[in-house]
Amino acid sequence: MSEFSLDLTATDGEARAGVFHTPHGPIETPAFMPVGTRGTVRGVLPRDLHEVGARMILANTYHLHLRPGEETVRALGGLHAFMGWDGPILTDSGGYQVFSLADACEVDEDGVTFQSIVDGSTVRFTPERVVEIQATLGADVQMAFDHCPPDPLDRAGVEAATDRTHRWLDRCVKRHEELGGIERGQALFGIVQGGAFDDLRRASVDAVCSHELAGYAIGGVSVGEEREAMYAAVNISVPALPTSKPRYLMGVGTPGDFFDAVGAGVDLFDCVTPTRNARNHTAFTSQGRVNLRNEGFREDPRPLDPACDCVACTRFSRGVLRHLCQTNEMLAGTLLSLHNLRLFHTLLASMRDAITRGHLSALREELVPSMTRRVGPGELD
Amino acid sequence: MSEFSLDLTATDGEARAGVFHTPHGPIETPAFMPVGTRGTVRGVLPRDLHEVGARMILANTYHLHLRPGEETVRALGGLHAFMGWDGPILTDSGGYQVFSLADACEVDEDGVTFQSIVDGSTVRFTPERVVEIQATLGADVQMAFDHCPPDPLDRAGVEAATDRTHRWLDRCVKRHEELGGIERGQALFGIVQGGAFDDLRRASVDAVCSHELAGYAIGGVSVGEEREAMYAAVNISVPALPTSKPRYLMGVGTPGDFFDAVGAGVDLFDCVTPTRNARNHTAFTSQGRVNLRNEGFREDPRPLDPACDCVACTRFSRGVLRHLCQTNEMLAGTLLSLHNLRLFHTLLASMRDAITRGHLSALREELVPSMTRRVGPGELD
Repeated sequence: MSEFSLDLTATDGEARAGVFHTPHGPIETPAFMPVGTRGTVRGVLPRDLHEVGARMILANTYHLHLRPGEETVRALGGLHAFMGWDGPILTDSGGYQVFSLADACEVDEDGVTFQSIVDGSTVRFTPERVVEIQATLGADVQMAFDHCPPDPLDRAGVEAATDRTHRWLDRCVKRHEELGGIERGQALFGIVQGGAFDDLRRASVDAVCSHELAGYAIGGVSVGEEREAMYAAVNISVPALPTSKPRYLMGVGTPGDFFDAVGAGVDLFDCVTPTRNARNHTAFTSQGRVNLRNEGFREDPRPLDPACDCVACTRFSRGVLRHLCQTNEMLAGTLLSLHNLRLFHTLLASMRDAITRGHLSALREELVPSMTRRVGPGELD
Repeated sequence: MSEFSLDLTATDGEARAGVFHTPHGPIETPAFMPVGTRGTVRGVLPRDLHEVGARMILANTYHLHLRPGEETVRALGGLHAFMGWDGPILTDSGGYQVFSLADACEVDEDGVTFQSIVDGSTVRFTPERVVEIQATLGADVQMAFDHCPPDPLDRAGVEAATDRTHRWLDRCVKRHEELGGIERGQALFGIVQGGAFDDLRRASVDAVCSHELAGYAIGGVSVGEEREAMYAAVNISVPALPTSKPRYLMGVGTPGDFFDAVGAGVDLFDCVTPTRNARNHTAFTSQGRVNLRNEGFREDPRPLDPACDCVACTRFSRGVLRHLCQTNEMLAGTLLSLHNLRLFHTLLASMRDAITRGHLSALREELVPSMTRRVGPGELD
């Protein structure tokens, strides 16, 4: 019997609270997965990542294939040992990175050829190869290789890429089965494409869900389109997905996004937002988003976010954090990453609780106006 | 009564084991103080610093004066709050930095004028000013402002700088007393100079020890001179210092240095060696010093140092650490800093234990040959 299952524990409108079971333990959903691109969530020790509330984390197939290579990861004990993480891990398929990061990317029906950003060498990804790479890496969940079109508004391009994504999914599923399938302890999630076109999104959900998979993702969002277009795609795709499987909105998001997407029935998120913003000295707080380099914080002895229990908020002041940012100390990025992640995980825990009580709309009204604004030192309590 | 005292608990030849009491707690000596130049030991959270065994840490007056300024540190609760460190802290006087880092440094009898490395502005340090800055920062121990000559072999230059250091010490002591002295909870340590000249070193010990201070330091070492010259200076200065006060060898060192200097009667050390080397991907191990970027570590699944209990050695393999170094992940510097510091603190704890048992020479013979060599992957168990 598969070790993967979703137990729904409560619903509130379309929103769901549940537990996603994996071979490396359960994850309460809705949940946010921090991104550990090259095997680490930058500047954050795994034990601190667990302490701030992370339960499932993500690593990038594209980056790990290029360096150090999946065979090296396997020789070092597999991805869990490599990342020093005993909990669940998901690897993306590299589809997004290949089409957004790689130089001289050429796509054909069989796969994609591109130049390595590490050493310029020519690399070939096919659906089968990407499944094999991810099987070697050894995450709990692997993602199908999709063709992620850069412009979600170019209908002909989106349609061709979406159709190709479906044919590639067939091949991914086949190769995944040949390698032992889900019984080997690794699930495969399919990815819905379709850009900003309602009919293409609906058709993509049908095509992807024709495969009985352990979970389904919404891809091709958060690629530069308007927020409204993204939620149009989410609101069309998500209700058509099976209720019994986790739904993962890729590359999203922010506190505001969580309310919109969870409200539409999404269970899983990943994004570099909390950690990349942290390294750029931006913190999410219960009172809004702040830039810690602001001169107004110079002699502010108060905690960054009085509502937060992370190490940055309990052991340091706004003034100290500003100093660490101003002097580009490594610890600035580490402390703000821990804080932002703590805020994200705490927020999602509050949302789970609200769903259980049927209070998600009330929580949204209470939190969203303050959390989603940009604030300066004078506007913070 | 002063809160500062040294209890000697054992001696082994000239080597001493003891406990140095400060207002922020005791430190077992001999001890190594990690360097937190601008208020942090780079990339290391204070709680992790404590976990690897650090008890007293150092911050740089020069850097903190330039940015954020001592008044800002005071406004943010003083140096302990600023560094998130409840244990003892020592601030250096900036003497070494002024003469080694500052542009256009001009020294006169009254003090030193130099250009800020932060914004190019003109800064003036006098002995009185440096005592005031350190009083405002609020460390447990402050250091006298000394003239640290760049070339320890230029007799005329060394003699003039050493004599000036003694006159400046008189002024530091006077200003320290005017500000409340040691009863205010902050001790002042004097610094012995004298370069590589035995008679100047002896005269400097006499001059500095004419003041009854809470501790004494050996300065003007580790400034580019030969190792032999450094230990000549140490071996002349240290035995002439009062046995009842801590002896601090500034800017030293390495595992080999600890044996030489502790053997001569030194109690306290500080150096950027463990942390700067870590950020440059060099680790100290029980088997020697290694560069983690070495290709030979690529698929090595063993712990960096099987004898070490730090997070880098218990949660990651040599192969993973190599990958983190190769990809310049922030975590590489953090993990290797924690490891190197753990090794330093563990080594000094072993030396304390050996002194208590009268086995320091045996420990030296056992550890020094392997610890002080450079090794490649093939030479490591």
